[in-house]
Amino acid sequence: MGKPLLRVGLIGSGFMGRAHAFAYATAEKVFDLPFRIRLAVLADATPEAARAGAEALGFDASTADWRAVAEGEDVDVVHVTTPNALHAEMAIAALEAGKPVHCEKPLAPTLAEAVRMAEAAERAALPTQVGFNYLCNPMVRLAARMIEDGAIGAVRTARFVHAEDYMADASVPWGFRHDPVGGGVLADLGSHALATAEFLLGRVGRVLGDCVTVIAERPAEGGPRPVVVDDVARAFLRFVSGASASLEASWIATGRTMQHDFEIHGERGAIRFTQERLNELHLYLTRDPDGLRGFRRIEAGPAHPPYGRFCVAPGHQLGFNDLKAIEIAGFLDAVAGQAPAAFPFSRGARIQALVEAVARSSAMGVWTEPG
Amino acid sequence: MGKPLLRVGLIGSGFMGRAHAFAYATAEKVFDLPFRIRLAVLADATPEAARAGAEALGFDASTADWRAVAEGEDVDVVHVTTPNALHAEMAIAALEAGKPVHCEKPLAPTLAEAVRMAEAAERAALPTQVGFNYLCNPMVRLAARMIEDGAIGAVRTARFVHAEDYMADASVPWGFRHDPVGGGVLADLGSHALATAEFLLGRVGRVLGDCVTVIAERPAEGGPRPVVVDDVARAFLRFVSGASASLEASWIATGRTMQHDFEIHGERGAIRFTQERLNELHLYLTRDPDGLRGFRRIEAGPAHPPYGRFCVAPGHQLGFNDLKAIEIAGFLDAVAGQAPAAFPFSRGARIQALVEAVARSSAMGVWTEPG
Amino acid sequence: MGKPLLRVGLIGSGFMGRAHAFAYATAEKVFDLPFRIRLAVLADATPEAARAGAEALGFDASTADWRAVAEGEDVDVVHVTTPNALHAEMAIAALEAGKPVHCEKPLAPTLAEAVRMAEAAERAALPTQVGFNYLCNPMVRLAARMIEDGAIGAVRTARFVHAEDYMADASVPWGFRHDPVGGGVLADLGSHALATAEFLLGRVGRVLGDCVTVIAERPAEGGPRPVVVDDVARAFLRFVSGASASLEASWIATGRTMQHDFEIHGERGAIRFTQERLNELHLYLTRDPDGLRGFRRIEAGPAHPPYGRFCVAPGHQLGFNDLKAIEIAGFLDAVAGQAPAAFPFSRGARIQALVEAVARSSAMGVWTEPG
Amino acid sequence: MGKPLLRVGLIGSGFMGRAHAFAYATAEKVFDLPFRIRLAVLADATPEAARAGAEALGFDASTADWRAVAEGEDVDVVHVTTPNALHAEMAIAALEAGKPVHCEKPLAPTLAEAVRMAEAAERAALPTQVGFNYLCNPMVRLAARMIEDGAIGAVRTARFVHAEDYMADASVPWGFRHDPVGGGVLADLGSHALATAEFLLGRVGRVLGDCVTVIAERPAEGGPRPVVVDDVARAFLRFVSGASASLEASWIATGRTMQHDFEIHGERGAIRFTQERLNELHLYLTRDPDGLRGFRRIEAGPAHPPYGRFCVAPGHQLGFNDLKAIEIAGFLDAVAGQAPAAFPFSRGARIQALVEAVARSSAMGVWTEPG
Repeated sequence: MGKPLLRVGLIGSGFMGRAHAFAYATAEKVFDLPFRIRLAVLADATPEAARAGAEALGFDASTADWRAVAEGEDVDVVHVTTPNALHAEMAIAALEAGKPVHCEKPLAPTLAEAVRMAEAAERAALPTQVGFNYLCNPMVRLAARMIEDGAIGAVRTARFVHAEDYMADASVPWGFRHDPVGGGVLADLGSHALATAEFLLGRVGRVLGDCVTVIAERPAEGGPRPVVVDDVARAFLRFVSGASASLEASWIATGRTMQHDFEIHGERGAIRFTQERLNELHLYLTRDPDGLRGFRRIEAGPAHPPYGRFCVAPGHQLGFNDLKAIEIAGFLDAVAGQAPAAFPFSRGARIQALVEAVARSSAMGVWTEPG
Repeated sequence: MGKPLLRVGLIGSGFMGRAHAFAYATAEKVFDLPFRIRLAVLADATPEAARAGAEALGFDASTADWRAVAEGEDVDVVHVTTPNALHAEMAIAALEAGKPVHCEKPLAPTLAEAVRMAEAAERAALPTQVGFNYLCNPMVRLAARMIEDGAIGAVRTARFVHAEDYMADASVPWGFRHDPVGGGVLADLGSHALATAEFLLGRVGRVLGDCVTVIAERPAEGGPRPVVVDDVARAFLRFVSGASASLEASWIATGRTMQHDFEIHGERGAIRFTQERLNELHLYLTRDPDGLRGFRRIEAGPAHPPYGRFCVAPGHQLGFNDLKAIEIAGFLDAVAGQAPAAFPFSRGARIQALVEAVARSSAMGVWTEPG
Repeated sequence: MGKPLLRVGLIGSGFMGRAHAFAYATAEKVFDLPFRIRLAVLADATPEAARAGAEALGFDASTADWRAVAEGEDVDVVHVTTPNALHAEMAIAALEAGKPVHCEKPLAPTLAEAVRMAEAAERAALPTQVGFNYLCNPMVRLAARMIEDGAIGAVRTARFVHAEDYMADASVPWGFRHDPVGGGVLADLGSHALATAEFLLGRVGRVLGDCVTVIAERPAEGGPRPVVVDDVARAFLRFVSGASASLEASWIATGRTMQHDFEIHGERGAIRFTQERLNELHLYLTRDPDGLRGFRRIEAGPAHPPYGRFCVAPGHQLGFNDLKAIEIAGFLDAVAGQAPAAFPFSRGARIQALVEAVARSSAMGVWTEPG
Repeated sequence: MGKPLLRVGLIGSGFMGRAHAFAYATAEKVFDLPFRIRLAVLADATPEAARAGAEALGFDASTADWRAVAEGEDVDVVHVTTPNALHAEMAIAALEAGKPVHCEKPLAPTLAEAVRMAEAAERAALPTQVGFNYLCNPMVRLAARMIEDGAIGAVRTARFVHAEDYMADASVPWGFRHDPVGGGVLADLGSHALATAEFLLGRVGRVLGDCVTVIAERPAEGGPRPVVVDDVARAFLRFVSGASASLEASWIATGRTMQHDFEIHGERGAIRFTQERLNELHLYLTRDPDGLRGFRRIEAGPAHPPYGRFCVAPGHQLGFNDLKAIEIAGFLDAVAGQAPAAFPFSRGARIQALVEAVARSSAMGVWTEPG
């Protein structure tokens, strides 16, 4: 009704670009957004790709010139879902043009670029968001709230894993994720695990890394091309709180498609989660009576906001795209000035600092503080 | 582009009405629908409810006169999501006005009404659909395909359950689901289990029922009101194929929020599923080597259409609203004449025949054939 | 030290005979039994089988004359683990010779024989025990105690299953379990499920059965032999308490090796168990806070007697043979007059009455009271 | 019959001493052992404890002088289950007296002592065994065999965990496990995880450790006593094969009672196991058809030797004490010269070398090779 119109620009129409468009469609129905939404312009690498994407996803216009989105007068907010080597230039341009920016993770190939992006956001004093969407899961938020409220007492130890197997087959060709700058599983998936770790347990003080390249070359045009980035990356973490943890990121974890897991042990309880069953959280409380203690399986329901926006009955389950819709809705609240951005560029740069600290630690074989 | 416009009318804006609106928004992005969609008119019981619903869900117009939807010139297809006592009149009016109809389950309070609806659909020669959305799950469809292909051999035995606990608390007040005509858990949830049973194993030849009222009265205005409908309904099933099965529907299954489960035993394998983990199917094959046999947990992915429309990577998971979007997309394919309707009114009437057969069998205490 | 000697006689050295001998060895170490144990005499069908069994299992003597065990002066208690057609004669002889008897389940092929056995036990005023060993599981006993204490409120509904697949292959030859008298899965496995049902929920008032022969003939010497006993048996149960339940027994449940499961829904909670994970019990309590409710997985430990006799630390797990040792220890307590027998012949006869009621109900197609 | 007699001596009658006695009782029945067994002499710290233990566990004689067992003429094999600071002196004495020795894990508080023990075993040319009993699980052996046979291809990555919570409560008093020499969770539980790691994946070439003391003091007589040993110990492992892994040992993992887990990713498959469900192994094979891949849950059965010795039917489950019986039976085969010892002192010393390497690495913060 009286809501202002928000004209959305999207750069990139691949996996994540599509997910953003889906998320807008869902968010518009499910939430009481502060804006009327118009999917205004979609940019992609070629005019054809842009046109096809715009048609499929319902954008009014398309362009092969990303600046037409980042700096266009007919665009109010910008979503960047291109390969991460391109994030900085596009996002900074959009910010300098006065537009809030949502950028997919990892924020940038290097900490230096990520910091430039965060600085641009601060200069522009505009809301930004990085797409660490697993943190939008109501069950992960329940975990965070319980930890914060002391339900499991002071946290002592934890484990974080993000393991998939889409690179397990050595015949998967060399791609941008194998680029020595910004590539590797640590950046791609480890960033998710690191984001979850700090989301739940606060700042990491130092890390000890172990990054391993397992598949030394991959097919490419013109013959095999060497791979130097990590296929599995591990780290020990020491939090400022004193808690300690381990972390693993792998894209060669045969048989795993989405093992974004954590297990957290506190003085008075424990919490377990796996993204493989993303609508469940497992909670253990030492205060339960002797002989009746055990991890309880809590199923997502209206008691876990914003689940109830999607469905009034418990147990019906959210999917991946629903988490993305929650993320978008949060971004729009920030754009409207109704709430702080959940995961602004400054935090994205922080994750990049952790990624580089793990990599540096692994290379040097010593405990390292994030820069 | 050149796609025709489809103007959608919705009657009812409760839980299911909202789900239909969500589903359209998702389906439009995710699928290559045969139509451009306009959410045209929403009808609800009062002008205020209708207006609020239309605004929240993005309909162009609202009305308190359901006939303005069912018979309106500016509506191409009609969705009926009102309490089931109202389905027949609304759906038949819409069919007689020449509009394809999607109606929530159960189709009608009585078989007689359901048959009238199916006859109206046949007379009108229009596509219809009943909202048995669990059948739209790619994993349930995988189960059906495997059974049909003989992967587990001839099916011998099975179990079907649909158990929730939203009526377990005796203080839940008397409502329309407790109406002696068309009420009870057998109609509400048993219909889901029966639909799944016939979807997977073909026609049921006879049933032996056991329907039990557990909570004999419920709070109502003016004091407690007696309940005569079933809180738990069970049945033995004999399929035309020779297979036998058990079935249970319960809305007092304390601790269960969405236990739509099945387990099917064939000569050469078995299949298990639970809606509590709706992105998984468990498959057992006797042909696996001795010592290495076991139920394998298959996670939903692009190999299970139309999962890939939602996400190109496996393991990311669909949610309840995604299943609803699949259902809507199928309906629209039928409306466009591109595919038969997956679950037309005739099948909805069939389910109602099974519901009544179970109830009648329970009352008489004898094996009964569906009418 | 001053403990009296107990000379044990065993008739039958097959699967269950071996399990009894194992159980004595374990029980002697694990428990503070009221007796010193001597495995005195083992009888089997032939002198050779008896001698081999005695040697393997550590019995002092062997015989092909079962009466030498049942009536022998050098035997104090008798264990009967022969095919169930032989139970009555052997057990009654032993009782008449003044010996407490432990007999494997099912107690006898017919209720009439089972009643004769129970009467003989009563006449002899001697302790007897039937081998429903799943009831000896500390976690099943925890379930029973919680139900009795009202932890989940009044029980409303339940499901009981005992499903395996050792007869799923149609090439398994005809054997004594296929004997029209006393054979079938209802007697073999359904008796376990029925024993568990009454153990947890008290007396069953009436049943409605559905017994199905699926594999109509099996290989035998001289050619295929017809099978008339049930391969799957189902029943609805109505308990005297008012609770209702379903029950299934199957030996053709492809993929299942030991699915002795139950799920019980009460007014204020629920309990779930599967023998597939026999060291766990799942408990749901409605009094847990909103948003934090869920089935909690309780792992067996010293808080669940007599687990602590086997291991002082939780989580180490008991196995099938340990359950058998608990059963034997209970029997010996009864023999010593220190406790009532947990599952005397009278209860074994009761289970047989239920078995026959289900079979009769299935044959007649009507609700039936156990005789 | 003609089997030689074996007179067993046991030093220590605590948790593990009892388990050894239970294991002999079971092993004697379940296996066809190469000896007749007599539990001859039990030694404990005081005459009273020894006498009580001997009576409870069925030993012929008792003594407060451990040398009477280690060096006694009436003892053929010696079991050492005392606190690990005492292992070396006792075991070496027994070996020097010509007796095969079974010693509980960890072998000794220091590598130096463990090496002395291994050298004594070699000098004596007698069979020895260290009690890493999880390796006796048929499902763990199945995992080892599959890896060896190449069923999952070359192993790339793995995770090993052994987590319990028996020290999670800060009020658990200071005990011998907190002794700066030989104490800590790395020695106590990490040794199990390390043993499993090398059992499955071969020799570890280097480690990077992270050992953390979480609870800095514990109650003791006379007031709180500082704790310097680790409560959680983690390591990255690099195997000689090239595979890499992470490992965690914790005794403060609130909610976990027996999480001895591993997950192994190979080129063509993966294997998962948790001791919490010790009768299951989960196997993933990439060669399964697209859309039908998934971890299959293999349940223990006669196809997994020596399960069939315990039970002829699958799914009945082994318990912790059964694993101990398998371990004892293997030791006796070694004593009889029928098979090599599965886990001799030399391998126990090797585990101790790994333990110390992890501790040293943690203290120095650098990758370290086991000494």
